[in-house]
Amino acid sequence: MPVGTHGVVRGLHPEEVRRTGVQIVLGNTYHLHLRPGEDTVAALGGIHRFMHWDRPILTDSGGFQVYSLAEIKRARIDDDGVEFRSHIDGSLHRITPEKSMSIQASLGSDIAMAFDQCPPAGAAPEQHLAAMRRTTAWARRCAAMSRPPGQALFGIVQGGTDLDRRAAHLRELSELEFDGFALGGLSVGEAPAEMYRVLDAFAGELPASKPRYLMGVGTPEDITRGIAAGIDMFDCVLPTRNARNGLLFTSVGRVKIKHARHARDTAPLDPDCPCETCRTVSRAYLRHLYVANEMLYGRLATLHNLTHYARLVRTFREEIKAGRPLRLDRSEGEC
Amino acid sequence: MPVGTHGVVRGLHPEEVRRTGVQIVLGNTYHLHLRPGEDTVAALGGIHRFMHWDRPILTDSGGFQVYSLAEIKRARIDDDGVEFRSHIDGSLHRITPEKSMSIQASLGSDIAMAFDQCPPAGAAPEQHLAAMRRTTAWARRCAAMSRPPGQALFGIVQGGTDLDRRAAHLRELSELEFDGFALGGLSVGEAPAEMYRVLDAFAGELPASKPRYLMGVGTPEDITRGIAAGIDMFDCVLPTRNARNGLLFTSVGRVKIKHARHARDTAPLDPDCPCETCRTVSRAYLRHLYVANEMLYGRLATLHNLTHYARLVRTFREEIKAGRPLRLDRSEGEC
Repeated sequence: MPVGTHGVVRGLHPEEVRRTGVQIVLGNTYHLHLRPGEDTVAALGGIHRFMHWDRPILTDSGGFQVYSLAEIKRARIDDDGVEFRSHIDGSLHRITPEKSMSIQASLGSDIAMAFDQCPPAGAAPEQHLAAMRRTTAWARRCAAMSRPPGQALFGIVQGGTDLDRRAAHLRELSELEFDGFALGGLSVGEAPAEMYRVLDAFAGELPASKPRYLMGVGTPEDITRGIAAGIDMFDCVLPTRNARNGLLFTSVGRVKIKHARHARDTAPLDPDCPCETCRTVSRAYLRHLYVANEMLYGRLATLHNLTHYARLVRTFREEIKAGRPLRLDRSEGEC
Repeated sequence: MPVGTHGVVRGLHPEEVRRTGVQIVLGNTYHLHLRPGEDTVAALGGIHRFMHWDRPILTDSGGFQVYSLAEIKRARIDDDGVEFRSHIDGSLHRITPEKSMSIQASLGSDIAMAFDQCPPAGAAPEQHLAAMRRTTAWARRCAAMSRPPGQALFGIVQGGTDLDRRAAHLRELSELEFDGFALGGLSVGEAPAEMYRVLDAFAGELPASKPRYLMGVGTPEDITRGIAAGIDMFDCVLPTRNARNGLLFTSVGRVKIKHARHARDTAPLDPDCPCETCRTVSRAYLRHLYVANEMLYGRLATLHNLTHYARLVRTFREEIKAGRPLRLDRSEGEC
């Protein structure tokens, strides 16, 4: 699930996002609340019409961006909610569980996320326990709010990398009527091996009858590991942000497009990829656009990386449907 | 003719440029010489293959960019050519008429421009006369160079806004075997009325049997006035640069997209325009993308402005072919 911070997957027309094979897009509640505001989105017919995307949209709760502000002392958290200053104009805002649900209702997403508290990697055990208590209390308040017809609500399991805490928090949240469960608080700075350990041991504990969503993940390898552990959904800025920064994922390994070795390479970025980028331009031209800081680069690169991710996930989906064992040995080398 | 500084019309895939109806693209010799270098372009099969554009490409001579550097003391002009420092890394370069032709030959454009000297508006008469003498001498050296099969060469008439100087310079250049003639040294800072006066009096003096090209122009009104005066070709960054800066040309007037009045406007940018932007997104969404500084904005805006220009020119072309009087009263108001 690519991230559409401002109601757009950066650089791509919604029709192009569709062609990559992506099924669902994430909209950032925090960003859309500040700009253009949920009332404007509602007045324009809701987030689907606003961003011209007629497939599913998930909205996050707004919490994660706010905690990024907390790291730089622009936000203050208490039991009621979070007070923060806008990164745009410094104006003071407050998001509570009720406010988050109300914004997500105005946006009209298909999946709303419960407002949670996500501690950073390296938080002390008591910080984790406090965040879990608060997340449970907030989850109850979110679940008690009315939602637009058809809008699903997912709960978020916290607890860091400690499996007992994870299990305890899941038990608390399971008393509520969530439509799906997300693993929050991973990919927040811990080592990949730590995340894989939690995934392998805990992803399977989430109810199999409901979607399991791993938040903020990740590299193709992370996604492969997540799927192997039983995860159904992912969101991440990594394929789009890495694309813009010159790191491309291909069937023959990772490509750093700025390398001089691509300067006269007339081959496509990925000979095995059906995307418009790989069908129409050379590595040499892509590199030139990157070096010359031309905006077409970001778009062609994003189009490719998203296509690569969508194909990776589709392959696993087909293997799972066919009951075949998953091929987990995909190359991640550089070429 | 939109400008593709780095071998790309900024923000657009060549396939999109094609769909706007544009027939020819300009490549900047100066920029392509510095990055990626004409040898690299040649090694990649020439500028058409390099930028994935199979329609005509005109290359400028490189002079105009160099004179912009001269204004900021990064270039020095003498009778042999121009010495300048790269805006990228400060390295020292020299372009002579022969070098310009050789670069343009390596790029493999369809139309090469003779290397000229273009004085700024407000230059003294003796500066104009010196630039004309030099431009004529350089034009002879350019015409004496061999060119790739099929590459046309256009001469550039200087002389500022003085009609006698223009006529005298045209007489000098007419002794050479040019395939077309360009009016240089207009739209360089003089008042529009001054440019229109020169156009009305002088454009018709250029040989009718060869393409007449007005360089660096302009607004839809400028282009209308130019066509009425007998001009066949234009190049300008204005439709693309204005698009990125938020100024859009439509059938109902100019639109400044940042205006708050567009914030909840679900109407298309231009109800009369068939471009993808007008067919798929609202003014409100365009404004949101502009305000949020999203790169999709620049692309959607550029796509529209180029389509608007291409339609304007096509309308005139059809009127001329049909022998109808030109409709010159098109609205330029703001809406």
